[in-house]
Amino acid sequence: MEFQYENSFDIKEKIDHSRIAILPIGAVEAHGPHLPLGTDNLLAERLSEKLAERVNGFVLPTLPYGQVWSLRNFPGSINVSNESLIRFIVDIGESLFKQGFTTFAMVNGHLGNGTALKEAARVLYETCPEMRVFYFFYPGMGKAVAEIQETPSAHATYFHACEIETSYMLYLAPEHVEMEKAITDIPEIPMHADVTPTPWEAFTETAVLGDAKLATTEKGKYIIDVALENMVKLVRGEG
Amino acid sequence: MEFQYENSFDIKEKIDHSRIAILPIGAVEAHGPHLPLGTDNLLAERLSEKLAERVNGFVLPTLPYGQVWSLRNFPGSINVSNESLIRFIVDIGESLFKQGFTTFAMVNGHLGNGTALKEAARVLYETCPEMRVFYFFYPGMGKAVAEIQETPSAHATYFHACEIETSYMLYLAPEHVEMEKAITDIPEIPMHADVTPTPWEAFTETAVLGDAKLATTEKGKYIIDVALENMVKLVRGEG
Amino acid sequence: MEFQYENSFDIKEKIDHSRIAILPIGAVEAHGPHLPLGTDNLLAERLSEKLAERVNGFVLPTLPYGQVWSLRNFPGSINVSNESLIRFIVDIGESLFKQGFTTFAMVNGHLGNGTALKEAARVLYETCPEMRVFYFFYPGMGKAVAEIQETPSAHATYFHACEIETSYMLYLAPEHVEMEKAITDIPEIPMHADVTPTPWEAFTETAVLGDAKLATTEKGKYIIDVALENMVKLVRGEG
Amino acid sequence: MEFQYENSFDIKEKIDHSRIAILPIGAVEAHGPHLPLGTDNLLAERLSEKLAERVNGFVLPTLPYGQVWSLRNFPGSINVSNESLIRFIVDIGESLFKQGFTTFAMVNGHLGNGTALKEAARVLYETCPEMRVFYFFYPGMGKAVAEIQETPSAHATYFHACEIETSYMLYLAPEHVEMEKAITDIPEIPMHADVTPTPWEAFTETAVLGDAKLATTEKGKYIIDVALENMVKLVRGEG
Amino acid sequence: MEFQYENSFDIKEKIDHSRIAILPIGAVEAHGPHLPLGTDNLLAERLSEKLAERVNGFVLPTLPYGQVWSLRNFPGSINVSNESLIRFIVDIGESLFKQGFTTFAMVNGHLGNGTALKEAARVLYETCPEMRVFYFFYPGMGKAVAEIQETPSAHATYFHACEIETSYMLYLAPEHVEMEKAITDIPEIPMHADVTPTPWEAFTETAVLGDAKLATTEKGKYIIDVALENMVKLVRGEG
Amino acid sequence: MEFQYENSFDIKEKIDHSRIAILPIGAVEAHGPHLPLGTDNLLAERLSEKLAERVNGFVLPTLPYGQVWSLRNFPGSINVSNESLIRFIVDIGESLFKQGFTTFAMVNGHLGNGTALKEAARVLYETCPEMRVFYFFYPGMGKAVAEIQETPSAHATYFHACEIETSYMLYLAPEHVEMEKAITDIPEIPMHADVTPTPWEAFTETAVLGDAKLATTEKGKYIIDVALENMVKLVRGEG
Repeated sequence: MEFQYENSFDIKEKIDHSRIAILPIGAVEAHGPHLPLGTDNLLAERLSEKLAERVNGFVLPTLPYGQVWSLRNFPGSINVSNESLIRFIVDIGESLFKQGFTTFAMVNGHLGNGTALKEAARVLYETCPEMRVFYFFYPGMGKAVAEIQETPSAHATYFHACEIETSYMLYLAPEHVEMEKAITDIPEIPMHADVTPTPWEAFTETAVLGDAKLATTEKGKYIIDVALENMVKLVRGEG
Repeated sequence: MEFQYENSFDIKEKIDHSRIAILPIGAVEAHGPHLPLGTDNLLAERLSEKLAERVNGFVLPTLPYGQVWSLRNFPGSINVSNESLIRFIVDIGESLFKQGFTTFAMVNGHLGNGTALKEAARVLYETCPEMRVFYFFYPGMGKAVAEIQETPSAHATYFHACEIETSYMLYLAPEHVEMEKAITDIPEIPMHADVTPTPWEAFTETAVLGDAKLATTEKGKYIIDVALENMVKLVRGEG
Repeated sequence: MEFQYENSFDIKEKIDHSRIAILPIGAVEAHGPHLPLGTDNLLAERLSEKLAERVNGFVLPTLPYGQVWSLRNFPGSINVSNESLIRFIVDIGESLFKQGFTTFAMVNGHLGNGTALKEAARVLYETCPEMRVFYFFYPGMGKAVAEIQETPSAHATYFHACEIETSYMLYLAPEHVEMEKAITDIPEIPMHADVTPTPWEAFTETAVLGDAKLATTEKGKYIIDVALENMVKLVRGEG
Repeated sequence: MEFQYENSFDIKEKIDHSRIAILPIGAVEAHGPHLPLGTDNLLAERLSEKLAERVNGFVLPTLPYGQVWSLRNFPGSINVSNESLIRFIVDIGESLFKQGFTTFAMVNGHLGNGTALKEAARVLYETCPEMRVFYFFYPGMGKAVAEIQETPSAHATYFHACEIETSYMLYLAPEHVEMEKAITDIPEIPMHADVTPTPWEAFTETAVLGDAKLATTEKGKYIIDVALENMVKLVRGEG
Repeated sequence: MEFQYENSFDIKEKIDHSRIAILPIGAVEAHGPHLPLGTDNLLAERLSEKLAERVNGFVLPTLPYGQVWSLRNFPGSINVSNESLIRFIVDIGESLFKQGFTTFAMVNGHLGNGTALKEAARVLYETCPEMRVFYFFYPGMGKAVAEIQETPSAHATYFHACEIETSYMLYLAPEHVEMEKAITDIPEIPMHADVTPTPWEAFTETAVLGDAKLATTEKGKYIIDVALENMVKLVRGEG
Repeated sequence: MEFQYENSFDIKEKIDHSRIAILPIGAVEAHGPHLPLGTDNLLAERLSEKLAERVNGFVLPTLPYGQVWSLRNFPGSINVSNESLIRFIVDIGESLFKQGFTTFAMVNGHLGNGTALKEAARVLYETCPEMRVFYFFYPGMGKAVAEIQETPSAHATYFHACEIETSYMLYLAPEHVEMEKAITDIPEIPMHADVTPTPWEAFTETAVLGDAKLATTEKGKYIIDVALENMVKLVRGEG
């Protein structure tokens, strides 16, 4: 159910029957030559739809701007600060609570949003204690990736426009992937990138962190299905 | 051109050839039985596309949450504070400026956003003086409405889910209008609504301020075309 | 009754008998050659006194600084940001509520303060729900002006140091008007002034938007009396 | 020269010949049975006028609300937070600097404002380094008081509605003093009042801290003249 | 009892038996050639220990950074703004209250922290009304100093690296004093230093305000014992 | 070199010869029955000393309060918000930069501080671009732990009062470890702890996440030495 296509006369009863609001959050950010700037928005949106179907939730309109500090100097990136993002999400969450929702699930398509989403969830934990707030970023993907990835990761926690993220796109939004433009670029990420502010132009020109050419729909489906299954369980209170 | 479907390898040159970023801003808000909660998002988005075509600009992803203080207690409304909205837009604007844009045109579909957009534009006027920032809300609509409206307005500046706004939707997003559910509801808005905080539930149960039944595609087209023409002129520096 | 000339031993009982606090808010701002910088303060103050007499309210000391973004670059203008103004007024309002007032009426003499006053009122609506908060700016003046104005307005909502505002001064503070210096200056205000930040030096050198020479005491009295009558009704809960 | 009675056509040249802006800052606060709530405003205003005459400065409109935390629970007090006060004054100061002033002298009539004024001055020291900013609170009064006071002080730094402050009023604003109502009330102020938040209702019912009956015009004149002389020297750069 | 050396299994019961938390707050700041940068930290810490013994309280870990605006340009000074300091202390205070403490005594070793500590205490007065919050800065030292000081003070309220403060150190932290480097430097502090922002480099090169050579352990003990006795009484609710 | 024991006459030259400031940051937080509340402070401090020796840096006084949201309800925990922590650290960093430091290395002993430290470092990246800012939390410990740990971790990234952290303490601050009180407590941490705000009392009563009994000095030394070596390299610009 797409929330914004409902009307105000019917919505109250429908909320009463669902109680679950799902907010896709992405970003506009450089994703190499083969993926669009809105990759994280597309992923968050499509995955939210799948989750909504499974748990009978509402998909809210996508919040399409995120914190992209690391790639903000790359062409096409639009950056929003953690502080702005936190405030905005807290406002949305408090409104949802007043509207009768008891679950607010953020489906995040962009790692860089993680800090803000967690902080916003903690604020809501104080102001709306009766509402459960989730900040999902492909829960359980670590193990699934380990099983399936063919190339070594460029980094332990960054997956960007690479074998993995491109596979997500092939599964969830194939019409926006140009596989013929996919490249292999496995940069050496210096140790200091984890302990001092390091814009990514310091170690990559392409914003691709891996071998995008190895992406397949199957890999995407495999990991996404794991994440989806985990989200379903978590929303149902089983995880 | 939809900005988020471009890729980071090509976008720099394309920005150089356009320099114009168009941000649709709407809201999720009660709009009566015949219009969806996302009415203002749909209007902002569709109108932005028309503007982009005319001025060779980029349409950014819609910012789909706005300040809906007046209707926040109606079913389905999601409210974001002026302060949160201002910060968020300022961040986007500053990022656009760094990306090389010299025109940042906000196409606003929701009157309640007006205060925040104007304030954000003034902040950007200081921080990015070389970038022109517009906050459009159907410029010139007043005169056009006066020519065409059949029913008296419920209020001098509020047009909500009425003959006028429904006409916009019939023109720009007809697939989301359920005309068979359209109603006539012309509330008496007390004088104090303009001088003391007055949530709309004080004078309307439907959130419709007029006779939605009189809406037509033609009326919508007439006014929207006037507004569009004005926006084109203004973006081109002719207004 | 001037609040600040009362003493703390008697005031409690007097507040109990009135419950109405009236705050004049103006600005220090360029008003052409014939009107003083403090025009908006004088108007707010004198009008507040009239209102206080009619409703048995207290006139608080004038808050004499306002948001004058548009004219801030003109000689003599002193500008305070919306944010600072909002906070300051909220503090005053909360204090008044604790002192036992149930009505807090702001009588605003400067259009540019409108945004901040409305926002402050909304904050107080949450923090002091039992107190009614008004933000008056000559309520009903639109119709009265239309009846009486001899020259076309330079702008639909701006009346500045013109036939109208000068008439207010001739009625309320004639000792501060130098009619022999009054000028006629009807600038063409470009359409973009309403949709992009536009300091007034872009279209006027004098800060006069109209024909100040046509101002008369009678015109001032006519409009002010309408506004006063409306304020009286609104404060009494009749509007 | 009263700044707000000047007009915008003449003011620029006049500022060029003076460069000195004087802002009276007071408070609305309980001052016992014989002094009005606006005592600090009256004192700040009258003293500012004397200073302006001596140094050829402009008197700005009085900022009539201050931080009255200690007496906020007394009838008639209106309290503004330090933070709001700081922001407001910083805005005014920055505007004055842009208008060409090189000296911004705050003449404070209320001890409780001291913290905010000092902090605001430090902010302006960074943002407008070429402008000198003073926060005056009867400079040198300590020594003068010691010479002349007949009763022991209730406190080392608080002088409130007592022999001293009442004397100031008798000298500067005698028409607002009701000496026949003056009382003697020398409370024992506990040591902890200086080291833990202590609203004054903990030790006084009257808000008078001393023997107001001993106030005389001569005492007021003696101390005020010392303070004035010091302010003149300081503004002239001789102190 | 040093709070941080306790463990979480035993602490709850111990808090129940004490209820008193003591926070030493100092600064890193220039203190001339004979005293270390951390002088204020050492003083606050050692004095806190004495207080803790007397009242059976816990000494929390020292907050070793303070507001040193006046000396921030001297070698070695580290400055934290009032606003940051206030927030930090408020957080600590609220946490202590939740942990069961009913007395929160800040033992301040640096005059410049005074404003922030008082403001923080006022915030806590609202948010934790059942907890008593003290901001101690050698209470009663004024009288004790007057009795014992051999040299005239450079300033009525500033004691810095002088006869007095050096004596404190000789008593409380003698191992960090290099008396052979002590100097005599009694600057003339201009009157304007009290009424306009004045970094201390304007009147001293050494940061010593007096005759450090006259410092003795006995003087330090005399004053500190007075202050300690006062603190003990105040914490016990006897002052 | 301990910064706060230096004096202001010598420090300038010494800074010129080092340029490296090291700030230990910890927390006051429950660490089970065998480790003190100040464990993270002790670790940060001792490790900082080792780093300082290796790189000829200054150890600043420990900032002993951190963000302990997860354990804030445990006895003895003192929590500071991310926002307060960020502001405080940014102030310190900017001061250090003005003092001539070109490297500001935060040695963090508490995982929960990570978000705030990274954000602070990014702020400083803008305001002091010439200064390198590090936020260290045992860099490289992941691999070293994997080699040496005998028990499975309770969680992928949390190491708390367990085999590992207790080993650190045995190596760095053995006098504060009570091994005879060490316990084994390997809670099952639910999946939702990573995606929704989850105070730790939801899954542990002891705050111990593992088998503290298996801790040894050797394990501590092994991992700490790896981390130290990495920090040395990173500060020297070799990592």
